[in-house]
Amino acid sequence: MRVAIAGAGAVGRAVLELAGGYGHDVTAIFDSSGAAVDTDGLDPETVLDRKEQTGSVGSADRDRALDGPYDVLVEATPVTLGDAQPAFGYCRRALERDRHLVLANKGPVAERYSALRALEADSAGTVRFEATVGGAIPAIRTIEDYGPSKVRAVRGVLNGTANFVLTRMAAEGLGYEDALLEAQDLGVAEADPSFDVEGTDAALKGVILANVLTGGDPEFTLADATVDGITDIPASALELAAEDGQTVRLIGEATRETVRVGPRLIPEHGTLAVSGTRNIVQLDTEHAGRLNISGRGAGGPETATAVLADIGRLG
Amino acid sequence: MRVAIAGAGAVGRAVLELAGGYGHDVTAIFDSSGAAVDTDGLDPETVLDRKEQTGSVGSADRDRALDGPYDVLVEATPVTLGDAQPAFGYCRRALERDRHLVLANKGPVAERYSALRALEADSAGTVRFEATVGGAIPAIRTIEDYGPSKVRAVRGVLNGTANFVLTRMAAEGLGYEDALLEAQDLGVAEADPSFDVEGTDAALKGVILANVLTGGDPEFTLADATVDGITDIPASALELAAEDGQTVRLIGEATRETVRVGPRLIPEHGTLAVSGTRNIVQLDTEHAGRLNISGRGAGGPETATAVLADIGRLG
Repeated sequence: MRVAIAGAGAVGRAVLELAGGYGHDVTAIFDSSGAAVDTDGLDPETVLDRKEQTGSVGSADRDRALDGPYDVLVEATPVTLGDAQPAFGYCRRALERDRHLVLANKGPVAERYSALRALEADSAGTVRFEATVGGAIPAIRTIEDYGPSKVRAVRGVLNGTANFVLTRMAAEGLGYEDALLEAQDLGVAEADPSFDVEGTDAALKGVILANVLTGGDPEFTLADATVDGITDIPASALELAAEDGQTVRLIGEATRETVRVGPRLIPEHGTLAVSGTRNIVQLDTEHAGRLNISGRGAGGPETATAVLADIGRLG
Repeated sequence: MRVAIAGAGAVGRAVLELAGGYGHDVTAIFDSSGAAVDTDGLDPETVLDRKEQTGSVGSADRDRALDGPYDVLVEATPVTLGDAQPAFGYCRRALERDRHLVLANKGPVAERYSALRALEADSAGTVRFEATVGGAIPAIRTIEDYGPSKVRAVRGVLNGTANFVLTRMAAEGLGYEDALLEAQDLGVAEADPSFDVEGTDAALKGVILANVLTGGDPEFTLADATVDGITDIPASALELAAEDGQTVRLIGEATRETVRVGPRLIPEHGTLAVSGTRNIVQLDTEHAGRLNISGRGAGGPETATAVLADIGRLG
């Protein structure tokens, strides 16, 4: 497949780097400053060097990337809420050109699911978005393979940053602020961590899962989610929990009716109590009981692996 | 899809019962005594009642089922080793008629992988066998989606009966024989438990996983596996392990070079230490770290769910 990549953050760069190993050619990549385009396939190293030295992957016009020859567009620009622009526009352009679309960007799938599916219905291209939930964890594909109607609920630890903070609070008796500072020192939390610690990121994933369960009818957006973060959890809450063999995790849950994210008491050694930045997705199925999938929920190569698995399942 | 089912044990019966809910018609099913065939689709309840009352699903000839109209044959007869007959013959007949083949029976996939793939190569039909490893756990599909060459090793708890016995030995300080008797009382272990407790079942699953990793080159069969069971584990071993925060599980491991099954010391609260009859499959991946999938590894509806997911991915 010929792959065009929108966005040159950790995920976009990892897709560029790994695509060759899966038999694909990256013919274009763009970031906010410019584009690199080569219809014969870009050399990843050259592009990545240039990105590191100049801050941009290239000086070509973004339209050359979007209008150039490719079979699948990988949408890996930063998440935006509401209209999910400019990502949604890139998605539209790919589908209107009858190209496939693989998203790592949660915005369009969480905020404009029905619009995205409507574009897909009018296109010869297919939309996939495994990478939007749980990084390398094959949550979406497993729901699709089981049949969405055969899955009653999906829950889990959907944000590695919040989970790292809670894990450190429990393990070391740290307060929230100290655990957050440690996470920021290690690069696990952003300078502005609100997207992760307030539950927004987990909620977007919950919304995507709910949309997969319902097929978009009803359609969920972030506005439909009930969201509590971890910013107000005192160290004493984790100590009290531990005395009772429990711990606290930020759990996201999606059903066909609701999306909820909030801190929950769970058994300390229970299945959902994954440690550090790991994620877990738990499916309650109709005929096969409970299925748990845990793994790395974020990171460039991890998320790129999900993107490349999606590309592998196309046509 | 029109589905024909070879075998009317727990899995075959569950496929018959659940297929309609996935939009499929079962047009034939046979057991060792006879067959039921209806080109318009069988009524599951009628067939299951008859099986319960007479011991057989019907009085029609097996050849009528195998030669009748269907799109996919589900092979769910009992495992046989070596030439994997008579199952392999049913597989051959389906593929030679250009029908799809979905196996729940480990025999042909573990013992005659290359022969099966060769038949598939000459057929318009596709071979799938998710249900042969870990029941409802999507192990095979996940390896395929990641790309087998991107998975270094697969290990896990692949036999629920052995895991139940070890779990009860650890939890209650029972000896092996007492834990086995309890398992037999509960219907978790067979009257002759050797296939499970000697590691053969787990080894067949390991062989299948190794064949998926290598694509059959080299090809593995049961004869290539190094297998130790749990029959010689004394209660004292579990007590000693527990003093050190460890426990014992029967772990199967497949790489591109080896298949090994044996009791291993693992952390008591570690990821691999699933309880009771649950299974877990752990993938070491090239770019996405470690992925764990746990769930129900056996049972009619659970295994039928994997069969029906395979059918859903056909064509």
